[in-house]
Amino acid sequence: MTAKQFSCPVPMRDYPNIVLSHGGGGRLSAELIEHVFLPAFGKADGPLADSTALTLPAQRLAVSTDSFVVQPLFFPGGSIGDLAVNGTVNDLAMSGARAMYLTAGFILEEGLPLEQLVEIVADMARAARQASVSIIAGDTKVVERGHGDGCYINTTGIGILAPTCSIGIDRAAPGDVVLISGTIGDHAMAIMSVREGLEFEATIRSDTASLATMVHELLQACPDVRVLRDPTRGGLATTLNEIAMASKCGIEIVESDIPVDNVVRSACEILGLDPLLAANEGKLVAVVPAAQAQRALETLQQNDLGRSAAIIGRAIDDQHSLVVSRTMFGSRRIVPMPIGEQLPRIC
Amino acid sequence: MTAKQFSCPVPMRDYPNIVLSHGGGGRLSAELIEHVFLPAFGKADGPLADSTALTLPAQRLAVSTDSFVVQPLFFPGGSIGDLAVNGTVNDLAMSGARAMYLTAGFILEEGLPLEQLVEIVADMARAARQASVSIIAGDTKVVERGHGDGCYINTTGIGILAPTCSIGIDRAAPGDVVLISGTIGDHAMAIMSVREGLEFEATIRSDTASLATMVHELLQACPDVRVLRDPTRGGLATTLNEIAMASKCGIEIVESDIPVDNVVRSACEILGLDPLLAANEGKLVAVVPAAQAQRALETLQQNDLGRSAAIIGRAIDDQHSLVVSRTMFGSRRIVPMPIGEQLPRIC
Repeated sequence: MTAKQFSCPVPMRDYPNIVLSHGGGGRLSAELIEHVFLPAFGKADGPLADSTALTLPAQRLAVSTDSFVVQPLFFPGGSIGDLAVNGTVNDLAMSGARAMYLTAGFILEEGLPLEQLVEIVADMARAARQASVSIIAGDTKVVERGHGDGCYINTTGIGILAPTCSIGIDRAAPGDVVLISGTIGDHAMAIMSVREGLEFEATIRSDTASLATMVHELLQACPDVRVLRDPTRGGLATTLNEIAMASKCGIEIVESDIPVDNVVRSACEILGLDPLLAANEGKLVAVVPAAQAQRALETLQQNDLGRSAAIIGRAIDDQHSLVVSRTMFGSRRIVPMPIGEQLPRIC
Repeated sequence: MTAKQFSCPVPMRDYPNIVLSHGGGGRLSAELIEHVFLPAFGKADGPLADSTALTLPAQRLAVSTDSFVVQPLFFPGGSIGDLAVNGTVNDLAMSGARAMYLTAGFILEEGLPLEQLVEIVADMARAARQASVSIIAGDTKVVERGHGDGCYINTTGIGILAPTCSIGIDRAAPGDVVLISGTIGDHAMAIMSVREGLEFEATIRSDTASLATMVHELLQACPDVRVLRDPTRGGLATTLNEIAMASKCGIEIVESDIPVDNVVRSACEILGLDPLLAANEGKLVAVVPAAQAQRALETLQQNDLGRSAAIIGRAIDDQHSLVVSRTMFGSRRIVPMPIGEQLPRIC
């Protein structure tokens, strides 16, 4: 659903746009909670308060926080609302934790159309249902026009770690096999196509999705997974460099084995961007012992989100912790850690 | 310490100001973490990852989230860094929970002087030490110049609820006594004095502080405390209205019994502001059974932060849940729930 198709159900006090008082803690703040947030996220038990009580069944928890500042707020395949939920759910999944609860902090810019906020919140609620997480606490601040960009969202997630889980970014060892769960660069190119007004033969859609179920299946099938990581900001190149540095090994990848959608590849060529550096929001990198690589690949491919999964390389002995790529022509090149992100405001 | 006195210890790659790549997830992001955040917040056990594992001793948790957008970033008595820690610690304390862990999400504006960020982070670290909380996970995004305001911070807190705690905003009952832990309006007037360039005979300082210890002492002395709430955005008037509405009772206050610092009162008069609506960042409202009111008052007054604590009114039978104030002249007026905050960007 796009913002244009959307009809706002709450003509609150005749304010069609966010005003400063929506963040003031008074009646307008209360109305925003009552008419926008509670209908989407559900009502807490008992009265609303500044904190929410939880009773958790296990004692080993994982916690992750992430702010989202993507521009534009809406893009093919999703919105800042989807990203804000899936991004934090995925960060928890990469540590082997099952996300249970999310908090949501909004920084709204004066003038944001209320119907856009309603739509973002609906996207968050849908993504939360799909990932089986509850949004349990929230906060809204409003900044003056020209001091924000419509909507920024912070989500913080709490998940439960399996007692036996021993995934870690420092656990890759020479001989291990590196997999990617699907095509790379889709999210970054979906955003760029909108920003640059590019049209291709097919619309490039963001891959934003919760990876929680796929991770669960993978860990069931291959309990010895060494590293899980989602290649978001900085793309696959950054993720592989982080793994190599933390694990004190090298990583060798075969560039032609990395799945890239043809339209995404064309877009990257037109814009002079490298798919290896392009952000993903629904993909994971897994490092597994060689003996479990085939099983891991098949498990990923059986999930809808992993149909294009591929083995893309392996960890090797290298005291310099370099990531090297073998090209289609047989040459080798170093894949450096980028200084920054090639595209700002991608998530 | 003010920003001017501060000398930045990290001339990182010769960038004295925040650039977009500091939020890109690549090398500059890593340097920000290594040179700014880790020295202040301490290094986690094991490698840095997108989520942090916790082992908690109890199963009943409280969770709270809050974003901070105060302008200016530095003011007499504190900074956005102090507020970001104390605000969330206090929200947890008001539910009867002891804050244990905080996450910190930064949205930085391109061009923010790095030394200001270092100072904000130092303030957060000091406030966290004082409140005995650990900052366990973080995230940094950078937005282009003109799309932020230097620095926005979200903190999310996890605390442990005492098993017997039964505080709730809906638990005030007719006959209960209402207390405030000290003078009101200090924070709002400290901010306003800076914004308006006002000078008084004495500098008005924000009251930003962790209320955790005072709450602990109060609950030890008066285990039947009904309601705890910190009157931040919207001030005392908003808090009392929220309590009255949630508890389905009225509240009658005696205006002359509410402590207001003389300089703050003058500032309010000059600016045409009502202290009852002015934000506080280190005060609490407590509603207690009448039999424990004197004990509660003495307990608050024994804490440095509560020396000016006072009994300011009581809950009464009122099906309309009104807050009424008796003035010095004996007349009664309704204290309405404000529509919004009289001052934007106060926290």
